[in-house]
Amino acid sequence: MKYAVLGTGMVGHTLATKLVSLGHEVRMGAREADNVKATEWASSQGSQDGHGTFADVARWADRVIFAVSGAQIETVAAAVGEAAVAGKTVIDVTNPLDFSNGMPPDLVPHLSNTNSAGEALQAALPSAKVVKTLNTMNHEIMVNPAVVPGSHDVFLSGDYEDAKGDARDLLAEFGWSEPIDLGPLAAARGTEGMMPFWLRMWGAHGSANFNYRIVRA
Amino acid sequence: MKYAVLGTGMVGHTLATKLVSLGHEVRMGAREADNVKATEWASSQGSQDGHGTFADVARWADRVIFAVSGAQIETVAAAVGEAAVAGKTVIDVTNPLDFSNGMPPDLVPHLSNTNSAGEALQAALPSAKVVKTLNTMNHEIMVNPAVVPGSHDVFLSGDYEDAKGDARDLLAEFGWSEPIDLGPLAAARGTEGMMPFWLRMWGAHGSANFNYRIVRA
Repeated sequence: MKYAVLGTGMVGHTLATKLVSLGHEVRMGAREADNVKATEWASSQGSQDGHGTFADVARWADRVIFAVSGAQIETVAAAVGEAAVAGKTVIDVTNPLDFSNGMPPDLVPHLSNTNSAGEALQAALPSAKVVKTLNTMNHEIMVNPAVVPGSHDVFLSGDYEDAKGDARDLLAEFGWSEPIDLGPLAAARGTEGMMPFWLRMWGAHGSANFNYRIVRA
Repeated sequence: MKYAVLGTGMVGHTLATKLVSLGHEVRMGAREADNVKATEWASSQGSQDGHGTFADVARWADRVIFAVSGAQIETVAAAVGEAAVAGKTVIDVTNPLDFSNGMPPDLVPHLSNTNSAGEALQAALPSAKVVKTLNTMNHEIMVNPAVVPGSHDVFLSGDYEDAKGDARDLLAEFGWSEPIDLGPLAAARGTEGMMPFWLRMWGAHGSANFNYRIVRA
């Protein structure tokens, strides 16, 4: 499978590297085609072609992962453009963090509570099939659930069942069994809304190596 | 211990009844002294004095529990008044749900993200010692963690260590061991912010009988 990973931060780096290790073809996208981090990542994977602009790598790919800053989701979606993602499964792992009031960050007001980065992405690229998942945990756990011992959960939501199936396949490749389906993409308001708790829990625990388990009666 | 439970809904009813069963003296507070639900509850406990206005029961009590609609937290705090709670431990179990956009509810904008019902309560009654806790689960689980099998978590936050100690004692009486301390009261932004997720999870699970476990590496 050809995966475009949009974003050159820790999350994008971790996801792209894991996808390569799983045997996929991967290109990392950035605002500029010659982005240093993307170029270095591609180079580290022995590839000259493994990077490009957001639009270039998305157009090339079968599936597109948004691993950018959630606060920038609309800007990045505009840079990608509808033509590059029409009909494709788009995996959104972002959180719309707002650092303008200091630490810990809040959520971007217009992308939270009555909206979400996931929904904003879908609205900006209506012919894509957006699935929200993996945004409730540290990047290392995303691709290796065994970082945290025992049973714990990953969630997904989206408006297209076929795209959710693709996301389930990806999650299974990462090691996740039985992801919890929260229903329509609007449930991203819920999972993105957990981030302020997550940040406080990170502070209380002193490490990002934790995850949620939903214990059911 | 004398407990005032403010609120006559399911949460207030469950907490008040449990506190009586634990041997505490309990009065249920409402907007009006002759509130039917509060009067009936007191009657069911064999007490003529077990109810009153928010201010009356808070003034009488050693500890005060806010179990009202979180969206009304400021109105109820004003009705209670500073004199009734000065220096007292105040337990806040509310969530500021906004039903104005339909179901599932959102959070009240001015009480979420950069604020919380817990912080608004503390700001309205600065001489009280507010502790946020128990607001991340169904009312039946609050007073009986065994409703959900195995290990799962309750959180607390607040700006006064002595009041947190009181809250820990109460949680222990309810059956909770090792509550997770998230630090200052502002962490209520995190736990109240989990409610939109909780509501979606409720829908996905088909029952409110679930809770979070934080699984740590």
